[in-house]
Amino acid sequence: MKKIPIIIDCDPGHDDAIALVLALSDEKLDVKAITVVGGNQPVEKTGQNTLRILAILGKQVPVAFGTSTPLLVKPYHAQVHGESGLDGPKMPEPIQKQLDISAVELLAKTVEESNEPITLVPTGTLMNIAIFLLSYPHLKSKIKQISMMGGSAVSGCSGPGDVAEFNVWVDYHASHIVFHSGIPIIMHGYDVTNKAVIPYEHNEKFREHGKVGIFVADLLDFFGKPFRGHWPGTPIHDACAIAWLIAPEIFETKKVHVAIDLDGEWTYGATVVDFTGESGQSPNAEVVFDIDRDRFEEMLHSACKTYEEKERQL
Amino acid sequence: MKKIPIIIDCDPGHDDAIALVLALSDEKLDVKAITVVGGNQPVEKTGQNTLRILAILGKQVPVAFGTSTPLLVKPYHAQVHGESGLDGPKMPEPIQKQLDISAVELLAKTVEESNEPITLVPTGTLMNIAIFLLSYPHLKSKIKQISMMGGSAVSGCSGPGDVAEFNVWVDYHASHIVFHSGIPIIMHGYDVTNKAVIPYEHNEKFREHGKVGIFVADLLDFFGKPFRGHWPGTPIHDACAIAWLIAPEIFETKKVHVAIDLDGEWTYGATVVDFTGESGQSPNAEVVFDIDRDRFEEMLHSACKTYEEKERQL
Amino acid sequence: MKKIPIIIDCDPGHDDAIALVLALSDEKLDVKAITVVGGNQPVEKTGQNTLRILAILGKQVPVAFGTSTPLLVKPYHAQVHGESGLDGPKMPEPIQKQLDISAVELLAKTVEESNEPITLVPTGTLMNIAIFLLSYPHLKSKIKQISMMGGSAVSGCSGPGDVAEFNVWVDYHASHIVFHSGIPIIMHGYDVTNKAVIPYEHNEKFREHGKVGIFVADLLDFFGKPFRGHWPGTPIHDACAIAWLIAPEIFETKKVHVAIDLDGEWTYGATVVDFTGESGQSPNAEVVFDIDRDRFEEMLHSACKTYEEKERQL
Amino acid sequence: MKKIPIIIDCDPGHDDAIALVLALSDEKLDVKAITVVGGNQPVEKTGQNTLRILAILGKQVPVAFGTSTPLLVKPYHAQVHGESGLDGPKMPEPIQKQLDISAVELLAKTVEESNEPITLVPTGTLMNIAIFLLSYPHLKSKIKQISMMGGSAVSGCSGPGDVAEFNVWVDYHASHIVFHSGIPIIMHGYDVTNKAVIPYEHNEKFREHGKVGIFVADLLDFFGKPFRGHWPGTPIHDACAIAWLIAPEIFETKKVHVAIDLDGEWTYGATVVDFTGESGQSPNAEVVFDIDRDRFEEMLHSACKTYEEKERQL
Repeated sequence: MKKIPIIIDCDPGHDDAIALVLALSDEKLDVKAITVVGGNQPVEKTGQNTLRILAILGKQVPVAFGTSTPLLVKPYHAQVHGESGLDGPKMPEPIQKQLDISAVELLAKTVEESNEPITLVPTGTLMNIAIFLLSYPHLKSKIKQISMMGGSAVSGCSGPGDVAEFNVWVDYHASHIVFHSGIPIIMHGYDVTNKAVIPYEHNEKFREHGKVGIFVADLLDFFGKPFRGHWPGTPIHDACAIAWLIAPEIFETKKVHVAIDLDGEWTYGATVVDFTGESGQSPNAEVVFDIDRDRFEEMLHSACKTYEEKERQL
Repeated sequence: MKKIPIIIDCDPGHDDAIALVLALSDEKLDVKAITVVGGNQPVEKTGQNTLRILAILGKQVPVAFGTSTPLLVKPYHAQVHGESGLDGPKMPEPIQKQLDISAVELLAKTVEESNEPITLVPTGTLMNIAIFLLSYPHLKSKIKQISMMGGSAVSGCSGPGDVAEFNVWVDYHASHIVFHSGIPIIMHGYDVTNKAVIPYEHNEKFREHGKVGIFVADLLDFFGKPFRGHWPGTPIHDACAIAWLIAPEIFETKKVHVAIDLDGEWTYGATVVDFTGESGQSPNAEVVFDIDRDRFEEMLHSACKTYEEKERQL
Repeated sequence: MKKIPIIIDCDPGHDDAIALVLALSDEKLDVKAITVVGGNQPVEKTGQNTLRILAILGKQVPVAFGTSTPLLVKPYHAQVHGESGLDGPKMPEPIQKQLDISAVELLAKTVEESNEPITLVPTGTLMNIAIFLLSYPHLKSKIKQISMMGGSAVSGCSGPGDVAEFNVWVDYHASHIVFHSGIPIIMHGYDVTNKAVIPYEHNEKFREHGKVGIFVADLLDFFGKPFRGHWPGTPIHDACAIAWLIAPEIFETKKVHVAIDLDGEWTYGATVVDFTGESGQSPNAEVVFDIDRDRFEEMLHSACKTYEEKERQL
Repeated sequence: MKKIPIIIDCDPGHDDAIALVLALSDEKLDVKAITVVGGNQPVEKTGQNTLRILAILGKQVPVAFGTSTPLLVKPYHAQVHGESGLDGPKMPEPIQKQLDISAVELLAKTVEESNEPITLVPTGTLMNIAIFLLSYPHLKSKIKQISMMGGSAVSGCSGPGDVAEFNVWVDYHASHIVFHSGIPIIMHGYDVTNKAVIPYEHNEKFREHGKVGIFVADLLDFFGKPFRGHWPGTPIHDACAIAWLIAPEIFETKKVHVAIDLDGEWTYGATVVDFTGESGQSPNAEVVFDIDRDRFEEMLHSACKTYEEKERQL
């Protein structure tokens, strides 16, 4: 079977880490490169986290670091991933180093050299992707689609009015550029990724799957803490953007128009999703509105098992 | 028992009509005046509708007409209430006439002459109320509270991004003035009033309660049409603002900060409700987040029965 | 000769004071009422200043106090008029009191009772006028025109970008309402009223004209201080709005479209004057773009002499 | 004498053409590269114009084409330069071709390879420069300064309120990025470049200076037409940004804060220049506020003569 060539642009982050676990385990995906962006923490930290995750997974992929600075506004970083951006699991030292080129250059090089159109998978802020699209507009035609985690079809958790989603909000100008790029977008919004939960009592089951399974369980333990008691489990937002590539049938989606509000005092950065079509605007994104949680969890287990098997073979 | 003195500011409208049915039937409420505003239709139509509703109910209340023109932006009218603003029921000619003073003047006069603080109940756009508050700031201290239908704690159905609610959106500057007036606000938002439904198969039961019951059934039949098949019943939004005064115990509320976005290209007029308190702003409204639907329906039945009894006594 | 009936809405203020000197001296004008607004200082201070000015001038005019609070935004007061809003001259105690009705009510009553259309002359912020127009829209047809000091056809001196003019900027929503009221506007902008100067060495000449002349000289001395050394004299902004009614021939004007920017982070409250007609908008104001300074100064002298003569006749 | 290494980013355009005449004649400047941007016309046209201008001047410089598309908003092109963007002079076919890399890549390559810091001279919209700065943030330290034509310290000629200047307005987000890049900016605003005029009766004098002189005269003839009768001559806006590098002593400047308004309905794209310092913001630009016109004209003559001499030497 022919693999789907992808580039992951991420800011690990616990759920980014699990997205990488999933992406690098699967036979359907060919991860050509990983570019790193600031968001959950500055890119220096999310970059190191990326290299350390690769060390745990025993994988080598070209990695380049990008920016932490939004196009027009000030940087902002999340608190929920701890000081390192990946608190919780004990992380090894990196085995490989990042390349000596920027994330934007690695994106350009990888897309340019590919024989077939590439899928981009941003699971963080959209600064690297936006700058890449601005700098290399002629490469747009070689991008098949963008499967991203970000935005929210209902309401969000960030911004002055708490109506925007973090990844889209941090650099809402970059997000606007991506959503209006003309490239097919699959938006995994916060309202739906919040349903992609692992119930807390299931965490331990992951520990049965060797080193990577233990890593995932440690991630779930740390990241799930603030949700306990008021949410049915730990949401693994970013992994949805990968899961959809592997098994689109477990998601329900609709092609709609998504606008990013740029001006609202209380609402800037909100993704305004026109499910009813009343805005009269042409659809520019395929928005996920439901997920089969059970099959999502199964997919994560089976990813961990893949690593376990390889580990045993060594 | 001492009655609660209120002024209703409305733009009937099917659900405004049912709000009037409820308000004028109840022994707990003393409707001192009704002021009419443009919204569902221009004030000339909503004014006539008000007078005709009073004719059906056999009630006389001082009525004055106000404005259809927002403070800064252009007027906008709804489609869902039909050409007349109250399509469906066969309406009689008015018995009384409107007063020869404006809505703002009637508000001022009524509040000024009252011995005790008055409750305002706006069930339409907020232009009359905002202009009244601007013109007579010294009367604010004589207003006990504002129980209003409008806004939405989650999302809405109007405006360019479909994230605002009609009454608040049409004149969002007026709404901002009301929400920042310092007067206690009880906001019955569209997300909750959408639960205040009468199931379609219950409509006929209202016809058993004489003339007013038939009127209510006719209103439900017309207004409910577009909801059939995809909504559990006909929502009676505006009646919630009255129902809360009669039986606050059937509502659940929380004191929170509500901002009206004034600037967003896609989001202006949205009510940004800070349920988590993360905005750090002081609460300026008590926002309803749930309603006991069964008891709401009982209340409407019992209102219709009151009219029926009086009818029989004649 | 038939006098022009006017209502002055002011916030004295040194140049408002000279506007009153001019208005109440002239046989062409019939000052039906004076309404007071907050701006240069809160209305409590500007109100007292108004009553004291009337005491100096020996005139009795109906006076009512209005608001200091903008429709949507926070109040802001100027520094240039000193702590009292009229520092410098020694002021007598008032002889008359303000009426027991609000500025808006006095505006309504005076316009309503007048047999002929009234000219409004706002020389301060536009809150009273805007609220009056919102509350009594049916009286618009009885307003002949609005000759106002405010705005700027080039650039200004207030607001975050220093591109707005104070009177229009303080409550830019109110200004928008006035400029879009449909009533003919004559805008005496800051760029032109800055040419309506009295050279510092001319101040003393005013002292020759009795009590009122001395008052004017004292006003010029105080208000002119910060301009000495870098401006050809003391600008008497507000008096232009009165002078135009007396001698329109000393002004040059053009009918153009004026927009008030409501949104700009750095430019909100700026009056965007379309002198070239490129905006394609219909004119909504007659904007003054030049003044004959010499004749303006003569007019002030001759006003002071009128008071001097009356003083002698006593 | 050591030459100043510069990269010109332009969209010729008549005044861009004269800027190139000046830049390529002068012994003080070393034009390392020319990047072309859309603005006056789409980049396909302005690119061809650039190559043709080089053919006339007999110069070979690395040229690369960039974008015509603003970062977030729609493209907009000027009318004043005619259909080709350089109507008037008869233009030869290009001698050299553009490079096979983008403007952004040529900017990066040239800056990277230079031993000393480079001066950027944008005379068109700021899209290429902004994207370059976003893509290669680590090269900022190798940019000495940006001497640009654009903005206006007083008012402008573009945008909905006619208060913005074309180059800055077309992509005001890009302009914001450049002005807040931290790189020293010298802003030659429209209000001052409008004084850099060649009186119409002087046009003919340029014809005395051989082929390039005739080219300049033809440019002046065409571009000056709409100004005749109401302006003292043909303004050569873009050449100011070059002239300042050659002879800064003929300009007067002040270090001030410049903001680009991003939000104003009527004012977006306006450069808000804080000459008084009242905004309290740190200076981010050196803004030109006067020019010695006579010496500016002399400089153009002497440039033309330089070409004439070289022509004769052949």
